[in-house]
Amino acid sequence: MKKACIVTIGDEILIGQVLDTNSRHLAIALEEIGLHVCRMLSIGDRADEIESTLTRELAQNDVVITTGGLGPTKDDITKGVLARLTGSKSLVRHPGQLEKVHSILQSRGLDVLPINLAQADVPDTAEVLVNQLGTAPIMIFRNVKGGGTLYSLPGVPHEAVGAIPSVLEDIRQHQQLSSILHRNIMVYGIAESALSERIASWEDALPEEMHLAYLPNPLTGIRLRLSCYGGDPEEERKKMEARMEQLKSILGPLVYADEDSNLETQLGKLLKQHSLTVSCAESCTGGEIAHLFTSVPGSSAYFLGSVTSYAICVKEKVLGVPSQTIEKFGVVSSEVAAAMAEGVRKLTGSDYSVATTGLAGPGGDEFNPEGTVWVGVATPRHTVTVKYNYKNDRLRNIERFAASALNFLRLQILEEI
Amino acid sequence: MKKACIVTIGDEILIGQVLDTNSRHLAIALEEIGLHVCRMLSIGDRADEIESTLTRELAQNDVVITTGGLGPTKDDITKGVLARLTGSKSLVRHPGQLEKVHSILQSRGLDVLPINLAQADVPDTAEVLVNQLGTAPIMIFRNVKGGGTLYSLPGVPHEAVGAIPSVLEDIRQHQQLSSILHRNIMVYGIAESALSERIASWEDALPEEMHLAYLPNPLTGIRLRLSCYGGDPEEERKKMEARMEQLKSILGPLVYADEDSNLETQLGKLLKQHSLTVSCAESCTGGEIAHLFTSVPGSSAYFLGSVTSYAICVKEKVLGVPSQTIEKFGVVSSEVAAAMAEGVRKLTGSDYSVATTGLAGPGGDEFNPEGTVWVGVATPRHTVTVKYNYKNDRLRNIERFAASALNFLRLQILEEI
Repeated sequence: MKKACIVTIGDEILIGQVLDTNSRHLAIALEEIGLHVCRMLSIGDRADEIESTLTRELAQNDVVITTGGLGPTKDDITKGVLARLTGSKSLVRHPGQLEKVHSILQSRGLDVLPINLAQADVPDTAEVLVNQLGTAPIMIFRNVKGGGTLYSLPGVPHEAVGAIPSVLEDIRQHQQLSSILHRNIMVYGIAESALSERIASWEDALPEEMHLAYLPNPLTGIRLRLSCYGGDPEEERKKMEARMEQLKSILGPLVYADEDSNLETQLGKLLKQHSLTVSCAESCTGGEIAHLFTSVPGSSAYFLGSVTSYAICVKEKVLGVPSQTIEKFGVVSSEVAAAMAEGVRKLTGSDYSVATTGLAGPGGDEFNPEGTVWVGVATPRHTVTVKYNYKNDRLRNIERFAASALNFLRLQILEEI
Repeated sequence: MKKACIVTIGDEILIGQVLDTNSRHLAIALEEIGLHVCRMLSIGDRADEIESTLTRELAQNDVVITTGGLGPTKDDITKGVLARLTGSKSLVRHPGQLEKVHSILQSRGLDVLPINLAQADVPDTAEVLVNQLGTAPIMIFRNVKGGGTLYSLPGVPHEAVGAIPSVLEDIRQHQQLSSILHRNIMVYGIAESALSERIASWEDALPEEMHLAYLPNPLTGIRLRLSCYGGDPEEERKKMEARMEQLKSILGPLVYADEDSNLETQLGKLLKQHSLTVSCAESCTGGEIAHLFTSVPGSSAYFLGSVTSYAICVKEKVLGVPSQTIEKFGVVSSEVAAAMAEGVRKLTGSDYSVATTGLAGPGGDEFNPEGTVWVGVATPRHTVTVKYNYKNDRLRNIERFAASALNFLRLQILEEI
């Protein structure tokens, strides 16, 4: 199996100021095309360290991918090191990237300075993939010193992630990768350990060439990825499909997508398909649910709007939650969640609505511990509520609250359509 | 300056199943005591790879810290490798950790199996710090093969983080550490390249022991980090402070925080300090601004609520935007942004409000290209609007719109208080 190494360049990671998430995204992507990541490294913005690390890793791996160190400022020195490492005699200004530099700066209403133009300069030993999302080009150096191929990606996370598809395409074209198939389903509403127990006998019965991976994420639940190594792709794909059908029948409505997806996208499809509209009222999730809904392109077809009612007066005045309900049951209660959902459904005229009221922390109150949330869903038929409890920090709790609310809404819609 | 390397051991990181957060926590802690982290590594559960990596890093660093690979199952092989690496002849059962194993399993109502007791076994070359939060001990191997000292920590994140104080204490006792200082300011509203040009002469005049790093982020702007290596801490801190004062006066209101922070936290402080409240009305940002406000603990003191008015009927009915305004100027217009801001300010009774209407994409309309946003801010005095243009993908545009809106609000508040 071909081997890869991922190298993150930047002092900000070594002093802990920034968490490296690029390596994980790259690792998932490389694994999926059958390239084995043997090592991840983070090193600083020092020429000798960059040069010795890359020299060593290029001698040991088929592919080395770096992210970072390509900014326009003086602390970013990777490009110079790459030029020296590959014996480049001069820098060449790449026309495609240059155009990108101009269009990005113009669209931001900024002057184009010499320092910006220099972003489009690459060593004459590099092939270039234009970075569509930023000014620093994606550079490819093939068979460096007779060893592996080096891909240099920008460090800004969305630019690095945005570069992945074209880098994968290039790797596929230039490396002889053994066949690997993947098949994903998305699961929500069960812990990883419980899921593992639930499907243990199914998993144990998998043939040797198949392997199941659990990829958990607080916002999307657990992605189950079945991989198949080697064999005839057509035949193996059929075998995988049969296994997946078994798995889906074991898990039932815990499965919310038959592909790599997320709750808001799947909900959007469901709503669109049945010409339904939705709205939300948020207290503890503070806009996160609306943000998730509207992060899906085309969501204006079904998402009408939302009210974030952080203050009690907004709950009462805008959403029409009766003050007696709040007094009697407390803000974090089934009754208030229900009234919020009904209030926003009436206000926006949507078919469905979802509401949250809870305590993301830090700190709970005398009745509800930190991490408690009540979710209400109002539908054309009735209003239902449910309580969840999580034990994370504030931001993680908000994410889990929002995802749980979306999933609860999904289950209600499925029951009624 | 003393050097350190952090090594994470586990296949789950290399296939992207788990995001490594331990290294960042360790890096922050080591940096603070003046130990320079030169490298972070993630490697798999393979004996040869673990042994060669540790041998190499121990020869080059004063301190090497590993996390992971210490579980009771057969894929965790680190302990055997450490025994071999340090020439250990036998394993010793550590009484303090053994007690911990018993008490942890009992508290979980589990039987104590031989596999669990073996967790308390350590090579006879190790010193032990008892892991108070789990069954795997924290092991110290001093001056391995005449090189650095190795600290082996459990991989479970809260156990690794829990081990940090006692590990730092041991490092302080055994290493002669030199000082390192960091000082951050946060900047918003200028591109990295323009910022670099603006402060070039200031940066060039920095003494040799000081170094400036640019850390850009679409949601928080640019973090400028000044680092100072060596010297007398008290004296260097004063020198850094003087440099920072110069820098702040060059940048003026572009600087929004005198420490590592973000716009929503700083806005929160500003609002709290002056007993002001805020609300927002969001169209294209779809809840992101509310989410940012409420991601700050204690934000209920000043954030009253928000309306996400995705549908025109919600803009009209809930926010009271006149339908003639929408007809005459279009949804994405200064006039609608102003009316939305005024509407939500009136609805919630807040002192200030901020509103967005724009096109996050994909796709613009005949009047406005994708990436256009109008921001409106209503204050006790008046209502002001501004237009921004970005050229990113949908999610990135939403982030930039939200951050720009928060910054515009910040500037309005600063003018009025």
